[in-house]
Amino acid sequence: MRIVLASKSPRRIEILSKFAEFESIPSLVEEKYSKRLKPREIAMYLSLIKALDVEERIKEKNALIISADTIVVLDEILEKPKSREEAFCFLQKLKGRVHKVITGYTILNQKNLKKITDFEETKVQFGNYDNSFIDKYLDKNEYIDKAGAYAIQGYGKLLVKKITGDYMNIVGFPIYSISQHLKNDFNIDLMD
Amino acid sequence: MRIVLASKSPRRIEILSKFAEFESIPSLVEEKYSKRLKPREIAMYLSLIKALDVEERIKEKNALIISADTIVVLDEILEKPKSREEAFCFLQKLKGRVHKVITGYTILNQKNLKKITDFEETKVQFGNYDNSFIDKYLDKNEYIDKAGAYAIQGYGKLLVKKITGDYMNIVGFPIYSISQHLKNDFNIDLMD
Repeated sequence: MRIVLASKSPRRIEILSKFAEFESIPSLVEEKYSKRLKPREIAMYLSLIKALDVEERIKEKNALIISADTIVVLDEILEKPKSREEAFCFLQKLKGRVHKVITGYTILNQKNLKKITDFEETKVQFGNYDNSFIDKYLDKNEYIDKAGAYAIQGYGKLLVKKITGDYMNIVGFPIYSISQHLKNDFNIDLMD
Repeated sequence: MRIVLASKSPRRIEILSKFAEFESIPSLVEEKYSKRLKPREIAMYLSLIKALDVEERIKEKNALIISADTIVVLDEILEKPKSREEAFCFLQKLKGRVHKVITGYTILNQKNLKKITDFEETKVQFGNYDNSFIDKYLDKNEYIDKAGAYAIQGYGKLLVKKITGDYMNIVGFPIYSISQHLKNDFNIDLMD
């Protein structure tokens, strides 16, 4: 079966490539959503419109498309920071508190239009640190293009005290849950 | 400061190398312990004798030595499996249940003999799977030389449903806790 990952995220590509051969075709859709949706609904909705956008562009109609959207939530959604200053504010806000990382994902089989949209949620407890520690972290430039302004798989290891849930979900691709759906709903075993 | 990691584990070397320059000098000590100790005491004791063994062999007496020992506990300690058959038994036992991963670690400054021994504990919830799934996992040969017969950072991603605690601790090196001790007790900031 031809598998298409509707993402160009290096983390998602790295995780999935351990288990399957696939092409990466990122969606071009604008990530807009209604403010009336709950965070998990937003993540699922965004994964759905990404999958549908890529589906339209694959004319052979022979692909299994997997898309994902990861958001960081603490009181509100913390997007990818638009500046170093905004990243600083995010990391001050996250300090010493528990936030949620939610990945919505969609699996869509073009052949029969079977479709699953689901989400995975992980709680992340940040440690305490001072402003100079934030500055040193920002100096690594790891915050750029990361929801919530950190990367747990990088220097961000020193920010995170504890998690509850799936680790890979924080990296951006909840491979355990996705593998369960692939097995139970699409008859694809990633361990094969 | 000269840093020595008293381990040849590729996972530990990879994690620490992101944050510090160091040499790897594995201990040669035999990993024996009293059955009367609790699991966390065993992990800490083993890290201590590893650190002391390496300390003796560094004649310059100028190193900060970091050692670690990781054990997997479910009813009893699940060591590195001695055969594929034993690995199969471990994975059958772990299925659908929560086990603990405990890393004991020691940080020892040769210059003033200051020494910290502590541990980190993470709970790991395995998913359900059948025997053919275990066989396919064992075919990857990832179980070899791994306590508990799995590697969460590898194909083992598909075994683990959820964790509570520090992820890096399961990989074998609880860098968050170690960084806290390095900062508070040895005045070394890994983010520098």
